[in-house]
Amino acid sequence: MLIAEPLEKAIDELSKLPSIGRKTAQRLALHLLKSDRLTVDALTKSLVELKEKIKFCTVCFNISTEDKCEICKSPKRDQTIICVVEDASDIIAIERTNEYNGLYHALGGVLNPLSGIDVDALKIGELLVRLKSSEAKEIILALNPTSEGDATSLYLIKVLKDFPVKVTRIARGLPIGGDLEFADSATIGRAFIGRISL
Amino acid sequence: MLIAEPLEKAIDELSKLPSIGRKTAQRLALHLLKSDRLTVDALTKSLVELKEKIKFCTVCFNISTEDKCEICKSPKRDQTIICVVEDASDIIAIERTNEYNGLYHALGGVLNPLSGIDVDALKIGELLVRLKSSEAKEIILALNPTSEGDATSLYLIKVLKDFPVKVTRIARGLPIGGDLEFADSATIGRAFIGRISL
Repeated sequence: MLIAEPLEKAIDELSKLPSIGRKTAQRLALHLLKSDRLTVDALTKSLVELKEKIKFCTVCFNISTEDKCEICKSPKRDQTIICVVEDASDIIAIERTNEYNGLYHALGGVLNPLSGIDVDALKIGELLVRLKSSEAKEIILALNPTSEGDATSLYLIKVLKDFPVKVTRIARGLPIGGDLEFADSATIGRAFIGRISL
Repeated sequence: MLIAEPLEKAIDELSKLPSIGRKTAQRLALHLLKSDRLTVDALTKSLVELKEKIKFCTVCFNISTEDKCEICKSPKRDQTIICVVEDASDIIAIERTNEYNGLYHALGGVLNPLSGIDVDALKIGELLVRLKSSEAKEIILALNPTSEGDATSLYLIKVLKDFPVKVTRIARGLPIGGDLEFADSATIGRAFIGRISL
């Protein structure tokens, strides 16, 4: 190929990113080539620091710059509720709502025997150890409504029976701003099953 | 916000890239956070080298690692044809077709008086100087089929009248209003084969 080698290399590396194909990677590389040096330096520096400075909270496995994340350290958070999520990205999504003020526990995935993800691969043991010395009175399960997420929720309900905590799961139903006419049958079905008394 | 600062920074920088919104940027940043160190290093190194090693060919203004690009240096390329394109990305698209074996000349844009891009802002003077000492017998105009591209083609036809060269334009196999950079190889190839004498 007659594409200059450093450009080819940059396109290769960019196209390894999720949802970035070769054409998009080429557009990004040519954009960076036309950008001034400072822009490219700011980008690469931010990626290096992302890797160097971010670690995982030793309590809840949220991403953090220190051993204990901002949420676990905050005295303003409700220490009696722990919300169990799949990943740190779910914590970001929930924080953005400003509706929840408790703690979190990121499992680092969901049970998926076909992909070799079993109980030991997740931070479930760490959750049980954490519960022994915690003030938690309620565990909210907020896993994705997929078959793997549901299987993980069922497993957690079983193991959490031994602890003096209330276990709840976030509601399933029609998304706000959604349209009943275009919602899928499973969602409408769940919305009916989960109907609340008014 | 309770997103760790280095992550926030990386998301900010990634979302400055074209066609990358905040949600995609967050997905990319979290992907890089989970990737091993070597992957991230390879990406940042490739971007730094892209900026450090790539310059523009002094003859045809293609992107190159040296003063003269691979295409201009190659003895296998047909020295009697020069294909005039808007940008280096168009050269990549044309090379991918394997239908063309001549030389190139990248103008660095097209005439666009409203955006202040006039004849002097493009490498048109350089093309005319180049023609004085070149073996070129044919100039192929391969600008994007937009009104600005057409205006530039018309201008080039006028100034190239003084030179003993045949001026051709790639066929209108390209969809009007489309973008050469993103056309598929077969379409670009057909357009080369079907070029017409002007």
